Amino acid sequence: MTKKRVLAFGEVMLRIAMDNYQLLEQTKDARLNFTGTGLNVLSGVSHFGHKTSLLTQLPDNRLGEAAKAEMRKLGIADDLVKQAGHHMGIYILEQGFGNRPAEVTYLDRIHSSFGISRWSDLEIEDGLENHDLVHICGISLILTEETREAAFRIAEQAKTSGKLVCFDFNYRPSLNTEHDNQWLREQYQRILPFTDIVIGSKRDLIELLRLDQEVGSDNFEELCHFFTKTYQIDYFVGTERSRQDNQRYIRGLVYSHEQLVYSAEYPVYIFDRVGTGDAFAAGIIVAVLEGWPIAKMVEFATASSVLAHTTLGDSPMVTRKQVELFIENQTIDIMR
Amino acid sequence: MTKKRVLAFGEVMLRIAMDNYQLLEQTKDARLNFTGTGLNVLSGVSHFGHKTSLLTQLPDNRLGEAAKAEMRKLGIADDLVKQAGHHMGIYILEQGFGNRPAEVTYLDRIHSSFGISRWSDLEIEDGLENHDLVHICGISLILTEETREAAFRIAEQAKTSGKLVCFDFNYRPSLNTEHDNQWLREQYQRILPFTDIVIGSKRDLIELLRLDQEVGSDNFEELCHFFTKTYQIDYFVGTERSRQDNQRYIRGLVYSHEQLVYSAEYPVYIFDRVGTGDAFAAGIIVAVLEGWPIAKMVEFATASSVLAHTTLGDSPMVTRKQVELFIENQTIDIMR
Amino acid sequence: MTKKRVLAFGEVMLRIAMDNYQLLEQTKDARLNFTGTGLNVLSGVSHFGHKTSLLTQLPDNRLGEAAKAEMRKLGIADDLVKQAGHHMGIYILEQGFGNRPAEVTYLDRIHSSFGISRWSDLEIEDGLENHDLVHICGISLILTEETREAAFRIAEQAKTSGKLVCFDFNYRPSLNTEHDNQWLREQYQRILPFTDIVIGSKRDLIELLRLDQEVGSDNFEELCHFFTKTYQIDYFVGTERSRQDNQRYIRGLVYSHEQLVYSAEYPVYIFDRVGTGDAFAAGIIVAVLEGWPIAKMVEFATASSVLAHTTLGDSPMVTRKQVELFIENQTIDIMR
Amino acid sequence: MTKKRVLAFGEVMLRIAMDNYQLLEQTKDARLNFTGTGLNVLSGVSHFGHKTSLLTQLPDNRLGEAAKAEMRKLGIADDLVKQAGHHMGIYILEQGFGNRPAEVTYLDRIHSSFGISRWSDLEIEDGLENHDLVHICGISLILTEETREAAFRIAEQAKTSGKLVCFDFNYRPSLNTEHDNQWLREQYQRILPFTDIVIGSKRDLIELLRLDQEVGSDNFEELCHFFTKTYQIDYFVGTERSRQDNQRYIRGLVYSHEQLVYSAEYPVYIFDRVGTGDAFAAGIIVAVLEGWPIAKMVEFATASSVLAHTTLGDSPMVTRKQVELFIENQTIDIMR
Amino acid sequence: MTKKRVLAFGEVMLRIAMDNYQLLEQTKDARLNFTGTGLNVLSGVSHFGHKTSLLTQLPDNRLGEAAKAEMRKLGIADDLVKQAGHHMGIYILEQGFGNRPAEVTYLDRIHSSFGISRWSDLEIEDGLENHDLVHICGISLILTEETREAAFRIAEQAKTSGKLVCFDFNYRPSLNTEHDNQWLREQYQRILPFTDIVIGSKRDLIELLRLDQEVGSDNFEELCHFFTKTYQIDYFVGTERSRQDNQRYIRGLVYSHEQLVYSAEYPVYIFDRVGTGDAFAAGIIVAVLEGWPIAKMVEFATASSVLAHTTLGDSPMVTRKQVELFIENQTIDIMR
Amino acid sequence: MTKKRVLAFGEVMLRIAMDNYQLLEQTKDARLNFTGTGLNVLSGVSHFGHKTSLLTQLPDNRLGEAAKAEMRKLGIADDLVKQAGHHMGIYILEQGFGNRPAEVTYLDRIHSSFGISRWSDLEIEDGLENHDLVHICGISLILTEETREAAFRIAEQAKTSGKLVCFDFNYRPSLNTEHDNQWLREQYQRILPFTDIVIGSKRDLIELLRLDQEVGSDNFEELCHFFTKTYQIDYFVGTERSRQDNQRYIRGLVYSHEQLVYSAEYPVYIFDRVGTGDAFAAGIIVAVLEGWPIAKMVEFATASSVLAHTTLGDSPMVTRKQVELFIENQTIDIMR
Repeated sequence: MTKKRVLAFGEVMLRIAMDNYQLLEQTKDARLNFTGTGLNVLSGVSHFGHKTSLLTQLPDNRLGEAAKAEMRKLGIADDLVKQAGHHMGIYILEQGFGNRPAEVTYLDRIHSSFGISRWSDLEIEDGLENHDLVHICGISLILTEETREAAFRIAEQAKTSGKLVCFDFNYRPSLNTEHDNQWLREQYQRILPFTDIVIGSKRDLIELLRLDQEVGSDNFEELCHFFTKTYQIDYFVGTERSRQDNQRYIRGLVYSHEQLVYSAEYPVYIFDRVGTGDAFAAGIIVAVLEGWPIAKMVEFATASSVLAHTTLGDSPMVTRKQVELFIENQTIDIMR
Repeated sequence: MTKKRVLAFGEVMLRIAMDNYQLLEQTKDARLNFTGTGLNVLSGVSHFGHKTSLLTQLPDNRLGEAAKAEMRKLGIADDLVKQAGHHMGIYILEQGFGNRPAEVTYLDRIHSSFGISRWSDLEIEDGLENHDLVHICGISLILTEETREAAFRIAEQAKTSGKLVCFDFNYRPSLNTEHDNQWLREQYQRILPFTDIVIGSKRDLIELLRLDQEVGSDNFEELCHFFTKTYQIDYFVGTERSRQDNQRYIRGLVYSHEQLVYSAEYPVYIFDRVGTGDAFAAGIIVAVLEGWPIAKMVEFATASSVLAHTTLGDSPMVTRKQVELFIENQTIDIMR
Repeated sequence: MTKKRVLAFGEVMLRIAMDNYQLLEQTKDARLNFTGTGLNVLSGVSHFGHKTSLLTQLPDNRLGEAAKAEMRKLGIADDLVKQAGHHMGIYILEQGFGNRPAEVTYLDRIHSSFGISRWSDLEIEDGLENHDLVHICGISLILTEETREAAFRIAEQAKTSGKLVCFDFNYRPSLNTEHDNQWLREQYQRILPFTDIVIGSKRDLIELLRLDQEVGSDNFEELCHFFTKTYQIDYFVGTERSRQDNQRYIRGLVYSHEQLVYSAEYPVYIFDRVGTGDAFAAGIIVAVLEGWPIAKMVEFATASSVLAHTTLGDSPMVTRKQVELFIENQTIDIMR
Repeated sequence: MTKKRVLAFGEVMLRIAMDNYQLLEQTKDARLNFTGTGLNVLSGVSHFGHKTSLLTQLPDNRLGEAAKAEMRKLGIADDLVKQAGHHMGIYILEQGFGNRPAEVTYLDRIHSSFGISRWSDLEIEDGLENHDLVHICGISLILTEETREAAFRIAEQAKTSGKLVCFDFNYRPSLNTEHDNQWLREQYQRILPFTDIVIGSKRDLIELLRLDQEVGSDNFEELCHFFTKTYQIDYFVGTERSRQDNQRYIRGLVYSHEQLVYSAEYPVYIFDRVGTGDAFAAGIIVAVLEGWPIAKMVEFATASSVLAHTTLGDSPMVTRKQVELFIENQTIDIMR
Repeated sequence: MTKKRVLAFGEVMLRIAMDNYQLLEQTKDARLNFTGTGLNVLSGVSHFGHKTSLLTQLPDNRLGEAAKAEMRKLGIADDLVKQAGHHMGIYILEQGFGNRPAEVTYLDRIHSSFGISRWSDLEIEDGLENHDLVHICGISLILTEETREAAFRIAEQAKTSGKLVCFDFNYRPSLNTEHDNQWLREQYQRILPFTDIVIGSKRDLIELLRLDQEVGSDNFEELCHFFTKTYQIDYFVGTERSRQDNQRYIRGLVYSHEQLVYSAEYPVYIFDRVGTGDAFAAGIIVAVLEGWPIAKMVEFATASSVLAHTTLGDSPMVTRKQVELFIENQTIDIMR
Repeated sequence: MTKKRVLAFGEVMLRIAMDNYQLLEQTKDARLNFTGTGLNVLSGVSHFGHKTSLLTQLPDNRLGEAAKAEMRKLGIADDLVKQAGHHMGIYILEQGFGNRPAEVTYLDRIHSSFGISRWSDLEIEDGLENHDLVHICGISLILTEETREAAFRIAEQAKTSGKLVCFDFNYRPSLNTEHDNQWLREQYQRILPFTDIVIGSKRDLIELLRLDQEVGSDNFEELCHFFTKTYQIDYFVGTERSRQDNQRYIRGLVYSHEQLVYSAEYPVYIFDRVGTGDAFAAGIIVAVLEGWPIAKMVEFATASSVLAHTTLGDSPMVTRKQVELFIENQTIDIMR
């Protein structure tokens, strides 16, 4: 198999997770991890066998060095990392248990090294060079003006130079405290024309883009049709969660070339909830790069996400082989 | 909201819990916590926003100091704590997993600083001053003669001075090794006339108080009616556990003013089983102090107990806001 | 109760399990345990109240000393242990979570102190002396020529001197890389005539022994009948796993004297999957030694296995009393 | 003993310390603590038996709640805490070992809830009420304009209302990136007239205040004389570190009423280096509040600092009794 | 080498030690160990290659079972253990660091299973049978009347039946709260005539036995002479600690047959201070049993104690081989 | 600075180190690390700013994958890694404390993936390509015939193609169990002619090479002269350890161009003893690649080694900046 090359542009954050399902108030023991949509997606892609690189700015101190070491460990090249500033976005995670939800507390994210980063055209060009696909996260559109402008330019330049562009809505109304929804919609509308693969949900099409008003319906398939046609998108993908008799389930979906394909519905067991969407995205990207049929694509990406619920940390670390075995046999309880 | 003031009279114990669901024989790693019905109830009340204080005696050594520090952390004032003696009741907890039950091993509890404590009328009077409600645990009636007498006097004096008295049966036949059931029943009969809120169960009314013989029926509602009327009790409250298709459930109930109200039935996921009844009691106390309708009272208290199953340690630490969000939406798996 | 004496011949391995459900790549923190079918079975038998001893060879270094200390802790005499060589079989365990299976990675097992051990007739005779039953694991038949020959001689000598022989198929096709299935079948055929109790499954009778061809049917009861009659086996025992609505179940079975008896079906909650079959075997051995009726035997052994799923480590550590309480009441969630 | 009341105005920070002397790059396991000069000094004062309260602003989220719980545990009242914003100053600590120094990495500290806090005259007045002494840290003069102005107003108002003011230079050139030294000197010159107790060093008098130029000498005693006279300071106190034959030593000093008194020289064993100066300050404050002779003051404060080197965390937790026993007998290795 | 058999009569306690040099107030993480003079001495003797057994009473609950498992792990037979009651003596250990001393907090010790144990003549006779030496700790003389009487009877019966008796003063004035010194002296005087080996110090001979008054001198050698002659003691042994230039040292001594022999003086590095005297005693016992010359005896026992300072827990676990290598070469820093 | 490229040929081992200075028998908690001379040297070189790559064979299983991930984290490229077999050399480390030495227990090392690896000429050629220097460890000469032959061919081919060859004696008599010393000497004599930098000690020149017999003296400088001249070696380097008044010291030395230069003598504080020689080697390699003067070279390499004693794990992780700051100021105890 020829290894493809995937680039992501995005923020690296520090996640501080409390040990043993404890509340922040209960313990001093925490586990530090680096995270971020781009980082997570690349970790997944790397564990599925392709080459990856992250375009970001990290603090110019020991925290930045540690983040680079962790990136390399995950299989992500650190050549394109710039270092300046001394802060990194941080969130505290109190893991959930049973029906108690996990709880995320964000600390300062705006004044991070990534948030204040500026990118020259040359840096973007160099970053994209030799890559087959670039992944951009919607949070870049909201975080700071610097990251928003960079996201636009990267998407455009990638499109221009024939790279695939994968965009994740990652629509977090809570992050958008300065602007109104109208403004936010415009940012998304500005980047979508450059994208090939879009990760999102029905909620994004309706609440954010208000497509139901244009389509005159909230039928999901019709919304997908209109959305992908409007922006010339090849793959609109995502996951749907449900719950029945105290059991959670997930299924993936891919809308591509006028066709909406669902995966099987998988029971979900949550050990670590964060980053499971990124594991789905990684599966989709690999499937697109390798030219898989839609049915295989959606099954693999969903299984990748299902397994990401059962592993610690935000960054997917399950291998291609493990995902494939899981799809084959979901009831085995030990592999020797 | 005006903060109310809740006092509890009770034992502080040391809980030694083995790490990672291990049996005592398997590991040397343990987690120490302070616990006790009064302490736990106050922790819950404090996390729901009211002021609390514990009337107890602690060892006059470093263990006593550590217990006071932990009390303060939980939001419980330590002004009324006396220190004498050098021992504290202890129990070892081997956490359960799945269908393996948790197992509690008690070490010496009789010769603790609390067990040997003596209280002057003045101390009791000072303790009750400025408080709106006092919580007393049935274990005080059994532990030692000193604690029994203190419990009677506190209940009586509280009632006399117009405080609300909340009493928890906490009927543990295994603790009562010296006396017969008749004797035990008489102790409960002696304190009940002073109480306003009683936490208990059908089993307490039948096995301990033998009310079925007086009522001539074991119909729960009839028993409640007779019980609350006999002792002039405003609220008789408790929880009922059930199990269906390998899933545990819990629901709360409040019998008040001739009316028996049940909460919804909640699935239960056990991370730490101990103290979940105290979390229910804390919810009831807060609801009574704030004058809530019965339906809201029982729902809040039950949800408080449900969440206490999912958090480590005996002392409830979930906030009012978290309980309210849980009642609103029980399927959310992450809060950002 | 007179304590019986159980001997096992088998390998002690080092298990390296990653902490907190993490993948090997994710953490440096591991938990070391000693394991091995014989060790595990004896640990169970010892916790059920009988005397046990292990016949094995351990490294002549600090690892061997540590293994002996752990054996003694589990209640297994170390008098028959020889020490030579410096290696021990090792496996790495990445614990599963939810629907993600556990994963076992074996390191070198062939060149272990056990793998290279040689046993004189006198050593075997001395080992068997005073014992009522000897347990032999099928892995000894495959590991090395040394262990295979020892297994044959121990089984034969035990039979000759009137000891009970308990044999566990433990058929692992993956371990048998040098020989073909025909060769493997012959090894099993050679030892079975000396056995009284055999732990196995329908799969063993069909895939390994090919009895379906001789019987002309794959009906389990007919296979059992033929198998036990052919080799004069008193008890053919095992467990069957199933899954329904995302819940795993297990039930035990004993075929003895023309009768196939099943236990109740128990829901299974997995905390640590490995060694659960050995917990079943320990229950069977104790029941045989104490002459229990089949129904009690299969229920006890199965409950022992069920509880072994919920405890850390491969070696069963649940006591007789705990198993009995569990059979009586499977819904209790805390024992005080 | 009548308990005195000590107030501190200062920042609460989150300290993230790596476990087991590891570098940030080596581990994910960290220990979280709350710290800050004011918090640390109050923790010491509280463990020496007086009442304390912190005037600060904390994030209005779960991190703020956890900080308040920890404050209470340390014996510091949280009544004067305001909550707004969502960030807290953070530093990462890689503990040193032997001759490898500890290393501190600061993350964003400017945009913390404390950094953006604004204080009304009424709040300051209420804060000071009933307190005997207020502690202010020099870092407030540099952090943000908000904290600087508050520090000035608190110092002035405290002085006016007859409270003792204790000021700690805590001169960190690295924090002062925006202004020149001249500007920084002026800030210190502006607050010093309001102070009674000043914690500092010869370096502060020379490098920061340039008093050697005014005095025409760098003789420490002369500098102290000039400094305390100029600003009407009652106690100028600090510690001096030295090293001889690979052993570190510390001694404390107090300049008061024209007299320079040194403590004995104590060998220093470093387990946790941070906060040891605050332990010294706490000792001085207690000694001043209780009116001790200078010799006792400097010995107690220095011993407090020495013991703070041997305890984990920045906040002193050693009790008065422990300090006194240490002064009496420094060679005892176990107390039963 | 023929293995000898050593019996000890003594209390098993539960030690609760806080992790990572933390104070009790700082952490919930503790490490549980079983300890007690007899247990520790036997652990040492066992690691030096002889057979050992403990005569004691343990709780009849899971804590008692865990203690027995740990005993076996240490190489101590549990056949003579009785189980009754439900409590065990407990102490909390806050480890020291550098010049901060360790601190021990005792919880209830009087009402332990050992404290209330009663021993029949037959039990004592059976216990002593087949043993070459019995170790008795002075704490048994003080703890309760039951343990005192048993100690006397065991010593007498051992002497009568020709066993060696090793007695450890272990004089703790703080434990003797009920009686005066005169009474305490009499207890020691009553047991000493039955002893062969006595572990103690100059302080014991003077403060406890007041021998200086009888001898008319406090010269140590004269005291030893008088003491060993008076009670017909073969070996009076102990250790002396000193300190020079911030370095602690220890040396051992044996007074035997009119001769006082000292070991070399060893620098001491404290990782865990408790139990180091028991490691010395174990060395002496082994040397006596094997008939070593005094010089070898004192060197081995002292080196055993030195190494016990560097290992976690109270029970010595260093092997004979390790002690011997240490005596040969004390500067090696790694053994491969 | 232009980054140089350093290759190493060597074994990756798994190190299992017990937590908290405990003995293997005391705990189940271990910390896993990957190690090996080549890996360690490259980690150091990488942290000093150059590019590195390891030529080795790793198991074709999850352990191999984890080793690759760790290599990348350390900054070592994994492109040249082959994967075959399923075993890796293992050692267990019981850390020393104070005067108790660390103890290493080796498990099977011969049958590792590296031990059985075979290398084609093309693979060696490709491996060396683009590299400036190759590091070879003497253990390769002893381990197996496969590794010995590969080492010879790599050294020869590197020399031929103008690369620098750095060779580390790493003479471990205990590993050489099959051959006599004469045979071993011949292996070293065969590789030395291809080397430019040799890491070793006086002991190697005398005990292994017997140069004292040829030189007719054991004067170190004369031996160095003869040795470097005989084999045309540019740098013969190493460290010398000493001890004075219970304090350990180390100094480095470089013999180059007829000149023997020593570094300052540094006190040594041991947190983790293993790998400190590799940290010295890394410093030498960087100095040679950058063309430093000898005095700077030896000081930097020695300081690198000194700091490696204070950090956990075998692989040096201290940065160039940290080493330089340490050389400048060895008494600073905290860097902010």
